[in-house]
Amino acid sequence: MSLEFFFKPNVIAVIGGSSSKGKVGNSVLRNLVARHADAKVYAVNPKGEPIIEGFPCVPHVVDIPEKVVDLAIVCIPARAILDAVEDCIAKKVKGIVVITAGFKEVGPEGAKLEQQFLARCKETGMRVLGPNCLGMISLYHNSSFAPLTPAAGVVAMISQSGAVMTGVSDWSAVNDLGFSAFISLGNKADVDESDLIEYLARDPATRIIVCYLEAINNGTRFIEVVSKATKIKPVIILKSGVSEAGARAASSHTGSLAGSDIAYDLAFAKAGVIRAKTLSELFSYCKTFSVSKFPLSEYFAIVTNAGGPGIISTDAFVAEGVGVARFSPNIIQELREKLPAEAAVYDPVDIIGDATPDRYDVALRTVFNDSIEACAGALVLLTPQANTQPPRVSELMLKIREDFPDRVMIASFIGGRNVAEAAAKLRAGGIPCYDFPEEAIKNISGLIKFTRFGKRPPETDIPEIQVNKAKIQAILDGSKAENRPMLLNYECSAVFSEYGIPHPKTRLAKTQNEARTLAAEIGFPVVMKIVSPQIVHKTDVGGVVLGIKSADEAEEAFVKILSSVQRMRPDATIHGIEVQEMINRAAKKKTTELIIGMSKDPQFGPLLMFGMGGIYVNFLKDVSFRLANFLSVEDSKKIIQETKTYALLRGVRGEPPSDIEQVELVLQKISRLVRDFPDIVELDINPLLAFARGEGVSAVDIKITVKLASAAPAHAGGH
Amino acid sequence: MSLEFFFKPNVIAVIGGSSSKGKVGNSVLRNLVARHADAKVYAVNPKGEPIIEGFPCVPHVVDIPEKVVDLAIVCIPARAILDAVEDCIAKKVKGIVVITAGFKEVGPEGAKLEQQFLARCKETGMRVLGPNCLGMISLYHNSSFAPLTPAAGVVAMISQSGAVMTGVSDWSAVNDLGFSAFISLGNKADVDESDLIEYLARDPATRIIVCYLEAINNGTRFIEVVSKATKIKPVIILKSGVSEAGARAASSHTGSLAGSDIAYDLAFAKAGVIRAKTLSELFSYCKTFSVSKFPLSEYFAIVTNAGGPGIISTDAFVAEGVGVARFSPNIIQELREKLPAEAAVYDPVDIIGDATPDRYDVALRTVFNDSIEACAGALVLLTPQANTQPPRVSELMLKIREDFPDRVMIASFIGGRNVAEAAAKLRAGGIPCYDFPEEAIKNISGLIKFTRFGKRPPETDIPEIQVNKAKIQAILDGSKAENRPMLLNYECSAVFSEYGIPHPKTRLAKTQNEARTLAAEIGFPVVMKIVSPQIVHKTDVGGVVLGIKSADEAEEAFVKILSSVQRMRPDATIHGIEVQEMINRAAKKKTTELIIGMSKDPQFGPLLMFGMGGIYVNFLKDVSFRLANFLSVEDSKKIIQETKTYALLRGVRGEPPSDIEQVELVLQKISRLVRDFPDIVELDINPLLAFARGEGVSAVDIKITVKLASAAPAHAGGH
Repeated sequence: MSLEFFFKPNVIAVIGGSSSKGKVGNSVLRNLVARHADAKVYAVNPKGEPIIEGFPCVPHVVDIPEKVVDLAIVCIPARAILDAVEDCIAKKVKGIVVITAGFKEVGPEGAKLEQQFLARCKETGMRVLGPNCLGMISLYHNSSFAPLTPAAGVVAMISQSGAVMTGVSDWSAVNDLGFSAFISLGNKADVDESDLIEYLARDPATRIIVCYLEAINNGTRFIEVVSKATKIKPVIILKSGVSEAGARAASSHTGSLAGSDIAYDLAFAKAGVIRAKTLSELFSYCKTFSVSKFPLSEYFAIVTNAGGPGIISTDAFVAEGVGVARFSPNIIQELREKLPAEAAVYDPVDIIGDATPDRYDVALRTVFNDSIEACAGALVLLTPQANTQPPRVSELMLKIREDFPDRVMIASFIGGRNVAEAAAKLRAGGIPCYDFPEEAIKNISGLIKFTRFGKRPPETDIPEIQVNKAKIQAILDGSKAENRPMLLNYECSAVFSEYGIPHPKTRLAKTQNEARTLAAEIGFPVVMKIVSPQIVHKTDVGGVVLGIKSADEAEEAFVKILSSVQRMRPDATIHGIEVQEMINRAAKKKTTELIIGMSKDPQFGPLLMFGMGGIYVNFLKDVSFRLANFLSVEDSKKIIQETKTYALLRGVRGEPPSDIEQVELVLQKISRLVRDFPDIVELDINPLLAFARGEGVSAVDIKITVKLASAAPAHAGGH
Repeated sequence: MSLEFFFKPNVIAVIGGSSSKGKVGNSVLRNLVARHADAKVYAVNPKGEPIIEGFPCVPHVVDIPEKVVDLAIVCIPARAILDAVEDCIAKKVKGIVVITAGFKEVGPEGAKLEQQFLARCKETGMRVLGPNCLGMISLYHNSSFAPLTPAAGVVAMISQSGAVMTGVSDWSAVNDLGFSAFISLGNKADVDESDLIEYLARDPATRIIVCYLEAINNGTRFIEVVSKATKIKPVIILKSGVSEAGARAASSHTGSLAGSDIAYDLAFAKAGVIRAKTLSELFSYCKTFSVSKFPLSEYFAIVTNAGGPGIISTDAFVAEGVGVARFSPNIIQELREKLPAEAAVYDPVDIIGDATPDRYDVALRTVFNDSIEACAGALVLLTPQANTQPPRVSELMLKIREDFPDRVMIASFIGGRNVAEAAAKLRAGGIPCYDFPEEAIKNISGLIKFTRFGKRPPETDIPEIQVNKAKIQAILDGSKAENRPMLLNYECSAVFSEYGIPHPKTRLAKTQNEARTLAAEIGFPVVMKIVSPQIVHKTDVGGVVLGIKSADEAEEAFVKILSSVQRMRPDATIHGIEVQEMINRAAKKKTTELIIGMSKDPQFGPLLMFGMGGIYVNFLKDVSFRLANFLSVEDSKKIIQETKTYALLRGVRGEPPSDIEQVELVLQKISRLVRDFPDIVELDINPLLAFARGEGVSAVDIKITVKLASAAPAHAGGH
């Protein structure tokens, strides 16, 4: 359902609209005076004067003479919310903005009240923004109680903090930034960031979408919605609470390497979000993205009248991943001919300290005659010298902007008094200009990220796998029924067999004869181990026999293990004795220990980890992550390539390459498994042995943890 | 010798002083009109009018009637430099500032001219600033041709780029920043950054020293001088050219992991320099350090009227390593009593959106009543809300600053129009105020770094080692005499034996009998290898025999190796056959492979590397660095502790700890070795085996490369 009535309402009711200065209900009406386009506005207040701030006042929403009320702004105390909501429902109001605080954010009582009024809204389809918010501003109305109405423009801002919204709005007044929408999310009881981004992506007045978020409501929907939005326009997000995240996840083994900020990073990367790391970056991106064109390649020229800033900028190009333009020989030749002998004609193009405006003009026009692939745009650096005439340089740049509509220019005019006029001219004409080159380059990098995401080839989803789901579910349910969070080895083996993930063959023998038969089936040598939920340290109770080489030895081992365990742990429930294939590492050309792990992220679901396995995993932390629910075939390659372990897998010092394709397949299959069975809350393969190419892989130690009904903490133990 | 005549000259001669507008010689005179204190200024120009820009003009420096001329500013063309220098020498001028360009920077001809005039200056003791510079400005004169005279203040700026100097100067005009000195370094033919920092450290008018540098002239002197300066006042440096550095050093094995920017980082850390990473940071630090007090501990409170920015700031505290204040229970109690119920009283102290100036006052005074250890200062965040009254908050903060002279306040007032007046008030009163919290926090972090360096306990130099230097020098000279860059194994062994660095015993046998005796002396089993500078792949020519268990076998091996090599490589010079102890890893409780490397940095000398050894070194790059010439006992511990390998050495999963003390000793001894013998240009131990504590270490593969007279490239081969 479209949210247009929030943005372009024809009739607005302000419930609690008041003539008392300083009251929120008065501030909202006054803001509506400043901006309400063609909308009819009514104050709703049983004790109100007939006209408040120039708008008619009615006792209740139902008294509004218009047939349809699009939007009601609720500014009354929390205790009156239920009546107000019923009043709105009776009038079939399309949406309400609940500015009122005193709900979830104040404790359980408030949370209950919030749930109550929300339930009524959901029943009737009436949408809710808030509660506990600053309200919203669009090009057509200002129904917020923000202290000022920001200028109209192309930036849509969504903020989970009213204070950030106020700060941005105040800042924008002196930074020539205008907004198409300005929305305070509050408690996000109903309408959330995904709903708004979905709407704004299609809003022609909005050129960029900017968010300050502290959490995301529904990770899956967020990625789906935002992935579509970023195909159309940039979505820039500052997500705070980064540092707490690590601590929160520290209890789980995999999580201790992750921290859910990683999940946000992965989600943003998947959806094509440009992530601002600081408030300053967020503001800075607003300035650039609201006016700049987008570069058509990743290479930029540096044109400068100053050597030092040129070097600084070269450093920053490298740091920010911006490509330095590589001019064609004819362009270099042309630069040589047209510039003084002392000028540098490779990037940076240093037109030296005595450069006149004409020299800037010549240099820029020449480099822009090169192909887009060589030079998508230019960073123009200027320091005020005797011949510089900064305002004239700006004028020429604005002319060049028209003559080269496919090229991007970003400027850094370094100075204060002598560059102020020139910088203002540029900004007014749509060329971003920054005090310092590094900020300009960070913005070029941001623009390139948007271009790059737009050009990204479509990804291939990982193949579905036909498995006997009922069989696996029965194993999981069996474990849950016993209140046992971790599957037993032979259960893990059954699950992995279904998904075709190579691992040592493992069978459960219940009798001596079964032990003989199963061992022979598997092939010698085998290992035998006691299977009992109560016994963790199997060796301590004589529960393990290694290197069994014949059926007779298997039978013997069965008896020996059983008697030893029965003597030492008479209390234990014994499921049987596991017979397991022994992996003969010596027979392999190469063996590398890897880890694959999965833990659950509260927002984005299963988080897949890949890296170096064995004893190194805990201290080298050479690991990489992906969201299993969104894993593509390409991701299953990249998650490996991002680690240093990848070099080992390709083979160092003459070693053969490992069977990387088989590792990719395991990653794909594990992702399918955890997508198929949300009951699996944690999974660890450590090590996954990768052998030489053609020799395959083997998941020799598997841990699968299921969610228990009791919701008891389910941590993998034993390491 | 003091450089005071540069800063506070009594008599200044402007050679090339001119009445033609636009000429450098005229710009300098005009700047001197704007600032020359009590100095007498003379224009020197054979064709000049008697009075230029109000100053008397003489044909030559010798014609100046004053007995002593302190400073001559040279603005004439390069071709006339030699005459001008002679003229100055004749008049016994103390120092010259050569603004003139056309020297080293234009090619070999210019470099020759620079050397010529410099030689004359050195002979006579006349100091030179420049050539090819913008000149200099002090509190007492402006002898530059910069387009404006910056305000007087406490910042001394040294710049290797004239353009950066111009930009800073222009920027400072609108940012209330004043300068005690402003020096353009130019080509640094004589006076360099170290000379100036040494002077400015003792200059009472200078509160902070700020540099933009592209390279450092003399690394050792720099570290010595700056280490002393930073005990007195902050030295902040932006060093550019970071990204090229890596490429330059890529050819050497150790260097490929290093890149000499690491050497700069180490040097800056050793000397207590605060390194600015961007031009923006440099400017930002100027603003804070020029007015702020320095914190007495590392813990800061956050006081905010806005939740979102509070969270953002908490993230940034973690990212920048600033400690969050931990209030005493009584302070928390007091905050609870004095603030509204909804306020948060743990850090951040959120005094919520309706906070009045009085609430800021109460909160700040309360947290400042806590101990310095709990709270050295506060980050004050403000967003403009209905009750905020930002200018009044500023006034109260300035009063608090007086009442709590030992506490530091840094503000971020987020907004534009509604906070401008308040921010200006704060800045004028000496409290830095930034638009964004992250910038404020970066500056708090900078202030803390200065405090931390000042409190750092003195370091202990590594012990000297008594060795037979003549013996080692003879080995190095022998290798050089044969034009052989790499020492042979038995030579490395002799060097390591002198320094007491454990390694497999290695002796050179020249006869069968010697082989018997030496093998028996070393103890069986031993390895024997051919020693010949021409033979790199010893195994291919039958030059290696492993696992020799008796004197008879040793004799046999000697004959076998010799005959095989003589048959297959009749051309090779044979030094003899090496008999080497075999390390029995199986007999050790634990063996860890480490690497210790050394390569030469052009500025800072031997760069020591430590990390994980074996085949992992090249792809895991788990390494850490120190400057060997400045290695302290503490550094020899920290270089180990900084690596992830340290966790392995301490012992993971129940392994015993390694003999870390012995590893430290090897690092100390290697540092002494490379300090004692500058001829050693590269050294590699890979692996250094570290055994369990008490079992020691062994340098099993040593490569030592010496500098050849031919200066041929000397790269370690073979891996």
